[in-house]
Amino acid sequence: MSTVTITLPDGSELEVESGATVEDVAYEIGPGLGRDTVAGRVDGELVAKEEPIEADAELQIVTEGSEDYLEVLRHTASHVFAQALQRIHPEAKLAIGPATDEGFYYDVDGVELDQDDLRAIQAEMEAIIEADYDVERVELSREEALEFYEDNPYKQEILEDEAAGEGPISFYRQDDWQDLCKGPHVSSTGEVGAVELLNVSAAYWRGDEDRATLTRVYGTAFPDQDELADYLEKREQAKERDHRRLGTELELFSIPDVTGPGLPLYHPNGKTVLRELESYVTEMNLAEDYDYVETPHLFRTELWKQSGHYDNYVDDMFLLDVNDEEYGLKPMNCPGHAMIFDQTTWSYRDLPERYAEDGKVYRKEQRGELSGLSRVWAFTIDDGHLFVRPDQIEAEVSTIVDMIFDVLSTFDLEAEVALATRPEKSVGSDEIWETAESQLREVLEDLGLEYDLEEGDGAFYGPKIDFAFEDALGRTWDGPTVQLDFNMPERFDLTYTGADNEDHRPVMIHRALYGSYERFFMVLIEHFNGKFPLWLAPEQVRVLPVSDTNLEYARSVAADLEAEGFRVEVEDRDWTVGKKIQQTHEDRVPYMLVLGDNEAEAGTISVRDREERERKDVSFEAFREHLLEERDERRIEPDFLAT
Amino acid sequence: MSTVTITLPDGSELEVESGATVEDVAYEIGPGLGRDTVAGRVDGELVAKEEPIEADAELQIVTEGSEDYLEVLRHTASHVFAQALQRIHPEAKLAIGPATDEGFYYDVDGVELDQDDLRAIQAEMEAIIEADYDVERVELSREEALEFYEDNPYKQEILEDEAAGEGPISFYRQDDWQDLCKGPHVSSTGEVGAVELLNVSAAYWRGDEDRATLTRVYGTAFPDQDELADYLEKREQAKERDHRRLGTELELFSIPDVTGPGLPLYHPNGKTVLRELESYVTEMNLAEDYDYVETPHLFRTELWKQSGHYDNYVDDMFLLDVNDEEYGLKPMNCPGHAMIFDQTTWSYRDLPERYAEDGKVYRKEQRGELSGLSRVWAFTIDDGHLFVRPDQIEAEVSTIVDMIFDVLSTFDLEAEVALATRPEKSVGSDEIWETAESQLREVLEDLGLEYDLEEGDGAFYGPKIDFAFEDALGRTWDGPTVQLDFNMPERFDLTYTGADNEDHRPVMIHRALYGSYERFFMVLIEHFNGKFPLWLAPEQVRVLPVSDTNLEYARSVAADLEAEGFRVEVEDRDWTVGKKIQQTHEDRVPYMLVLGDNEAEAGTISVRDREERERKDVSFEAFREHLLEERDERRIEPDFLAT
Repeated sequence: MSTVTITLPDGSELEVESGATVEDVAYEIGPGLGRDTVAGRVDGELVAKEEPIEADAELQIVTEGSEDYLEVLRHTASHVFAQALQRIHPEAKLAIGPATDEGFYYDVDGVELDQDDLRAIQAEMEAIIEADYDVERVELSREEALEFYEDNPYKQEILEDEAAGEGPISFYRQDDWQDLCKGPHVSSTGEVGAVELLNVSAAYWRGDEDRATLTRVYGTAFPDQDELADYLEKREQAKERDHRRLGTELELFSIPDVTGPGLPLYHPNGKTVLRELESYVTEMNLAEDYDYVETPHLFRTELWKQSGHYDNYVDDMFLLDVNDEEYGLKPMNCPGHAMIFDQTTWSYRDLPERYAEDGKVYRKEQRGELSGLSRVWAFTIDDGHLFVRPDQIEAEVSTIVDMIFDVLSTFDLEAEVALATRPEKSVGSDEIWETAESQLREVLEDLGLEYDLEEGDGAFYGPKIDFAFEDALGRTWDGPTVQLDFNMPERFDLTYTGADNEDHRPVMIHRALYGSYERFFMVLIEHFNGKFPLWLAPEQVRVLPVSDTNLEYARSVAADLEAEGFRVEVEDRDWTVGKKIQQTHEDRVPYMLVLGDNEAEAGTISVRDREERERKDVSFEAFREHLLEERDERRIEPDFLAT
Repeated sequence: MSTVTITLPDGSELEVESGATVEDVAYEIGPGLGRDTVAGRVDGELVAKEEPIEADAELQIVTEGSEDYLEVLRHTASHVFAQALQRIHPEAKLAIGPATDEGFYYDVDGVELDQDDLRAIQAEMEAIIEADYDVERVELSREEALEFYEDNPYKQEILEDEAAGEGPISFYRQDDWQDLCKGPHVSSTGEVGAVELLNVSAAYWRGDEDRATLTRVYGTAFPDQDELADYLEKREQAKERDHRRLGTELELFSIPDVTGPGLPLYHPNGKTVLRELESYVTEMNLAEDYDYVETPHLFRTELWKQSGHYDNYVDDMFLLDVNDEEYGLKPMNCPGHAMIFDQTTWSYRDLPERYAEDGKVYRKEQRGELSGLSRVWAFTIDDGHLFVRPDQIEAEVSTIVDMIFDVLSTFDLEAEVALATRPEKSVGSDEIWETAESQLREVLEDLGLEYDLEEGDGAFYGPKIDFAFEDALGRTWDGPTVQLDFNMPERFDLTYTGADNEDHRPVMIHRALYGSYERFFMVLIEHFNGKFPLWLAPEQVRVLPVSDTNLEYARSVAADLEAEGFRVEVEDRDWTVGKKIQQTHEDRVPYMLVLGDNEAEAGTISVRDREERERKDVSFEAFREHLLEERDERRIEPDFLAT
């Protein structure tokens, strides 16, 4: 009998008989592990413990408490949902019901569900969990399976496509209910612990707009109620901070349907924040000797063919025909910068040359994937491209990483660092890729940074270091990036003259400190819950005259602050002071000055901040001095009243 | 016999017999004028003095010395060219030969002409002028005309199209040569005075790419040699200042063919100038309480239909198909701004609301019309849109006109002002147009400005005040604009709540101080001949160490200036001081500091400016102080060494 070699996560190897199941291997390692085995991850794929292994493979055993365990449990939760649904609505036809990062969903047909229905179904789910039915894998013949689903076209289609072939069909059964499923699942419904149905939306069968519209029910599940409660609380916080909600409330941006999806309009408040973000990055770039350039948004596709984007990116590009020639909106800024570099003669003494541009790029995401500012069709990158000699790579990348850490600290964000290596679709020789990757590794190690290795996640033109922002709620978002590129200089035949008087090929470095302004703005809105630091706040100070008699004093105080470049409004509506204060809090203005007769007579001010701290009888000069410092140092919190 | 009423330029009226010629009317006014009459302008159209007037008309008599006279003379010059050409190349077929603002051209077929040919033809033209042949209008029958042109398909086509009908055909004859022509012309070839053939290019018959390619010969003509010499000298100056030439030489921008026509790339030097221009206008806008906004470059055509642009502008729009929906790149920024305004509730107390955006727009000009930065496919407007109450129009337009005059004085430009009224293609009621036009007229008259009335040249959505920049060579270029718009608010149903608690329609004002950044940049490059004022100069100071031993001192002086935000380079190449100075002059850097041992020891500097003025032994502190003032006051000329 033949054997196969199993490689375990610690690198150790095990010879087992071909056809041994995941569970068999676990027992081989130890009887305790064997008993605890819920499922396995074979060559990266999550499979049932009953899955036979018939070739050499990497194997990770999934037991309770592991990250994969939660995915298995949520898959079972989707079965619990489906069983509960069909107990109440036997007419419901099931389509597909996978686990997701946040829980699970199930697409179903033949029922319309409202909040009351969800409550009833959830109660039924809890009863099923309470009953703690065993979850068993059973095998049906193809004929039995087709007969079982004779009224369900979706499962029939799955049987014809994914589950095509000769062998028996795997089902999972609990109580008197069963579902076509490859698994894996936890061993009983009781293990699911805690469930919550979250919402209902519409979804197309197989994501295809031309096919049936199904009802998608989202839910989540955890091993116990405490974890579920934690999750729901964070979800509630995230919902309150949702940048789409705050974007409307604080009049930052809008994405009206008539203008087009994924194409945000920035209102005055939002554009003020963006302008401050632009200034900050411009200041950093100029200090590091970047030269600003500007490139068109539209290029002949000839250019995109030369750059390689056409071959690798065409499905995501907006193309248009102009006088029978094909043009493309730029999906990246790099080829334009390479063109500029190419039109000057360079000596080794001139390098590095650093170009910067707040460059808008266009990527045609599917409409269903668009969401607020996090996924859009057109976004602006604080883009930089450096043309360097090979001996300058390490110093330049290292400076860029320093700039990124400056950004992180300015916005009170943490970051996860990852080195992403060669993807399947890529251009350039093996040698070039290896050189590039090892240089980036060196920089990270010299800086003593912890980083994940994300194999195959590089850009098609080179490896990269990606930084994911971690926000105040512990969520992570794509952010800054540094990418080496040995390919673009080849494609554009870029050269400089070396000390040896020969032509040499520069290395190109792509970098962004924020990444996309749109994504970064979204992160900031949610991270700060709309309470922007003073320097970013669209309105920095609001002056509230107690009554009309104080209006003149209020205006003179406002004018003094405006003269220093502060964004100040006077609330001169015929409102009570209480209402004025409340509105200012809702608008998240960092500071408000309440000015009545006492203040006007003494020439002082009363200061309140958005944390509801208050101090009366303050010297205007002291406040002004503090405000200048707080703004110019780009401090996170309004701290005049902090001590 | 019936009579017609002739209205003369001074407003007086004259009754003449119907069918009286222009010349008859002139004699009626006075025999002197009759004798001097060269041609006439009847209801705006330039016609021969033999033209009969058969309906009531406005008439201007054209005599020697008037502006129209030059046009008539140049038309005759094009005949002189054609006669000379056919004397030397009898095989040449003539197509059309009109007068232009700069002279005349003639499109011909069947000959290839080089510079030598042009010289020979010009000599022949001079002989024809010297011979002073009478230029006579003669009439041929249609059959005679067709026979005369039996080998010339172009003239035949003209006879079939423009000169279709029953009557005799007008020709102009000089010596033994004649040409199909409606006239008018001067009375003899000697009147042409002075001619110069300028260049040869290719042109399509009737401007149609699918028809024959003809040879177009450009020339110019003046009544005498002095005027011609003046013109040629200015033309030479303009050529030297040509922004395309200076754009390459000073590394400001490029338009490589592979990227696409009309799509400029701004290099670091050019983008530095643009950024200063942006800052200046931003400073002005913020001081006048404009709010910056940002709108996408791409909108559903649904929006362009709502705004009216689709109906009036679709031929010039870049359209693209995205998932079977039509989108358009924005040809104007106004609908985006209207959308933003529309998403907030406005009270009469909130107005005026002023939006600003450096907004890129896209207009699909014909490729043959594209030229450097003056005609491009994508350009950025320093756009502003104001939403105002009707009672605020005059104050707002008046402030905008003040801002425009600030711009003019900052750049040492003069302007011609024109009020442009309702064009043929337009939207909106008569009443709305009349109100709008009269408000603009009031502002101009209150400010005591001289202006031209350009009837029919308004935007399709409203009347406007246009400002044409007059540059150092006396040429004029489209520039700032203020446009009233009563239509867009209707189309987007924009409202504010009045003091009466009812909904009211705001008035929209479109304005730009520069107009297009691209066009304005072009004007500045040529106006200043690349010698930008200090605040705009890409490189403001170059430090030239006399030898390597002075390099350290040079670097410390440069660093002190950079600390003040100046753009400074140290010329550290192994060149002689003479060569360094020459290169700095060629690069048009305002100031250079020559630093040798004397300066290093004394801690002083030697200053040279680009006007080749020089002063030694200058205190660095005095220079630094001056430089700050010169930059911050945005002075036109480097004036440290002026006194």
